[in-house]
Amino acid sequence: MVTLVQPDTGDATADTIDRLRAIGREFHARSWSLGTSSNYSAVVSRDPLELVITASGKDKSALGPDDFVRVDAAGRVGDGSGRKSSAETLLHCLIAELVPALGGGPVGAVLHTHSVWSTILSAADLPRGHVRIEGYEMLKGLDGIGTHDTREDVPIFANSQDMVELSGRIRSLFSTLDWSGPRPPVHGFLLSGHGLYTWGASLADARRQVEIHEFLFEVVARGRLLAAAAAP
Amino acid sequence: MVTLVQPDTGDATADTIDRLRAIGREFHARSWSLGTSSNYSAVVSRDPLELVITASGKDKSALGPDDFVRVDAAGRVGDGSGRKSSAETLLHCLIAELVPALGGGPVGAVLHTHSVWSTILSAADLPRGHVRIEGYEMLKGLDGIGTHDTREDVPIFANSQDMVELSGRIRSLFSTLDWSGPRPPVHGFLLSGHGLYTWGASLADARRQVEIHEFLFEVVARGRLLAAAAAP
Amino acid sequence: MVTLVQPDTGDATADTIDRLRAIGREFHARSWSLGTSSNYSAVVSRDPLELVITASGKDKSALGPDDFVRVDAAGRVGDGSGRKSSAETLLHCLIAELVPALGGGPVGAVLHTHSVWSTILSAADLPRGHVRIEGYEMLKGLDGIGTHDTREDVPIFANSQDMVELSGRIRSLFSTLDWSGPRPPVHGFLLSGHGLYTWGASLADARRQVEIHEFLFEVVARGRLLAAAAAP
Amino acid sequence: MVTLVQPDTGDATADTIDRLRAIGREFHARSWSLGTSSNYSAVVSRDPLELVITASGKDKSALGPDDFVRVDAAGRVGDGSGRKSSAETLLHCLIAELVPALGGGPVGAVLHTHSVWSTILSAADLPRGHVRIEGYEMLKGLDGIGTHDTREDVPIFANSQDMVELSGRIRSLFSTLDWSGPRPPVHGFLLSGHGLYTWGASLADARRQVEIHEFLFEVVARGRLLAAAAAP
Repeated sequence: MVTLVQPDTGDATADTIDRLRAIGREFHARSWSLGTSSNYSAVVSRDPLELVITASGKDKSALGPDDFVRVDAAGRVGDGSGRKSSAETLLHCLIAELVPALGGGPVGAVLHTHSVWSTILSAADLPRGHVRIEGYEMLKGLDGIGTHDTREDVPIFANSQDMVELSGRIRSLFSTLDWSGPRPPVHGFLLSGHGLYTWGASLADARRQVEIHEFLFEVVARGRLLAAAAAP
Repeated sequence: MVTLVQPDTGDATADTIDRLRAIGREFHARSWSLGTSSNYSAVVSRDPLELVITASGKDKSALGPDDFVRVDAAGRVGDGSGRKSSAETLLHCLIAELVPALGGGPVGAVLHTHSVWSTILSAADLPRGHVRIEGYEMLKGLDGIGTHDTREDVPIFANSQDMVELSGRIRSLFSTLDWSGPRPPVHGFLLSGHGLYTWGASLADARRQVEIHEFLFEVVARGRLLAAAAAP
Repeated sequence: MVTLVQPDTGDATADTIDRLRAIGREFHARSWSLGTSSNYSAVVSRDPLELVITASGKDKSALGPDDFVRVDAAGRVGDGSGRKSSAETLLHCLIAELVPALGGGPVGAVLHTHSVWSTILSAADLPRGHVRIEGYEMLKGLDGIGTHDTREDVPIFANSQDMVELSGRIRSLFSTLDWSGPRPPVHGFLLSGHGLYTWGASLADARRQVEIHEFLFEVVARGRLLAAAAAP
Repeated sequence: MVTLVQPDTGDATADTIDRLRAIGREFHARSWSLGTSSNYSAVVSRDPLELVITASGKDKSALGPDDFVRVDAAGRVGDGSGRKSSAETLLHCLIAELVPALGGGPVGAVLHTHSVWSTILSAADLPRGHVRIEGYEMLKGLDGIGTHDTREDVPIFANSQDMVELSGRIRSLFSTLDWSGPRPPVHGFLLSGHGLYTWGASLADARRQVEIHEFLFEVVARGRLLAAAAAP
């Protein structure tokens, strides 16, 4: 795994933006980023922390090179462009800072998607606080998991429009988890009725973790339907 | 948001038609406009009101430049082409005229689609008169909605082949709604067993509102299935 | 509607074959013609009746110009190529001959597809002998139907590998139907656990009738699931 | 059917690899090989047995020419590249050797996929040891099946990370089956909560058998849902 933290030349940032634009086209086509939903970021500097992130309210199927802003660790737009960053910028900053600080490995990119399955599962399972995924081979697609014989409880946070309040809840939960082992305690989280946040050391890793989570959400949801149908 | 009301040169109309043709190819590929179903219009003059609209009975996957007609506020074809406008032209004219007149903001384009989910939800929920969508983040993709913590009741009208009668029912309901706030009371409506009408200030806005409604219909329908399966 | 019956030059046949190949690529991509399933034909001569039809056992995603044979009204390959026609050739010949003879309008093309929804609906509803489709606007996409306020019972025949026996059952049922009106009594039929046969005056018409039937089968099946989920 | 066993020139192997890469792109697009899941192999020498197989941990949507290794009958990488073969290499070797040895015809390619439907069906039906597929016309897409009026029980093995142990169980079951007739007793098998293994004399045959199995898994699963919904 290679992180996206590169010598911060303009070219490297432009390349990162091109790859985020490709993510937008792909995720829109896969129905994970419809309308102006979703936001994507990549870490372009680690010290001090800086991210490029999708600007607010953009159609993800047609992101242009100017549909991104550069923000600092507090989510402040520092590129003088006057563009507004995505409303959920604070969550990207939180993940990019908190996960490595807790020992969860480098974070080079954060992806947030809104699929049908993540929307309905996160709404249905909010009362129990997580979506439980257990026993599936595809779990091995998540970082540090080497067997199907395991369980991943994807945390669900009640949705909120108050990013400070929501960040606080995420920080509180994440701080109680054990990030010391080779396998992160969680690989993403859900906002109820909203969608998935996941991340990776590189943009390719984050994209893979989206793909794996989405597959598993569909498996869990369809598996419940099948179990109900097959029950005598 | 920019409306489609442009200086009405032939070029502007040709460009509008090109974009409506692209909508047809896209919506056919997404299974929202199969066979000769669906119709699309754009306002090309506001005073007097004139729209370009798909001609009757055309395959939406392969609309040609001549598969459109220009109609006035009463739905009359005024371009001397002899082509017949879509059977549902009156509904497009009604929306283009009524929604702004009631204070619902400019309407630059009206899109009508026939998806599987809108067909079955509108049939199932006709007795209660609407499809209720509540608590989902994706609602923020509809004009003027800024929080997930809200409810959208998409009205359902019993289907009819009599457009005058049907227009009357829509006009009656719409006239009782409060269009004075920044958020329109509805963003579209359903015909039972038939499909969705929605609109926007521009064609891009109307396309986004189709995408958001369709996503939410799928979420509502699949959410019911999951809820039924998970019930003990 | 224009039939495919053209002056039977080699060029016209080559063009027909090109269009059947495009149908194969499209239908495979839409999951209606997987593996070597499905077969497609077009009438290239009416008097005497001759069809071009897919050869037996070909991958429908990659039909070549030589993957077709020319057959007479009895399904005999008459082009000296030594190629074998599709096993279900007799059903194509039957439709091309019987439907017009009964007054059901010209038949220029016959398409047979194997979708998931047609497979499971035709198996589930075989005991009642038809799939009932009622009240949906999309029914207007079938030839001669002008209102949603109607019912289409798509006949289901028990599947068989004996095409002579099966043709006899289809002929028997079709001969009892009233084909005298502007609306055909049926627009296609199902073989149980197998798939759909439909037709049209032109290949474009037959393709549209496939698309409409498939949409409606999905609507009927998903509508049942939704109704069961929503029941108190 | 033509096997892939060709004079083992570098060109032939390069061509085989190109076709395996195309399989990866296609299967990723069809959601059968997400993330780094799945693995594909082709026999490039029969005596001694040698396969080219996907290297471990590669993204199947973007396989490069160097993302393959050459292994012998025991799964040992013999090309001096230092690359690691897929974790499940032993299963590919087992199939390539055992199935022909038992009389099950030549095996030129082995494909392993992870779809949603195979994942949930193999988990749901593990207690009975197989997924039963019965009465569907599409069964004729499997090698040696000439009628819908038949039954295919696709064996399910409990998933394991121990390939030696798992190979032993597969070998035990396969050795008890009757491979002497024109129709193989099974055409593939499932690992529970994991996915499908199937094979063919050529890569095209193996691809077709994936397509047919996947279609039938979807039919079986959706058919159960429909049956439950339609039950009174």
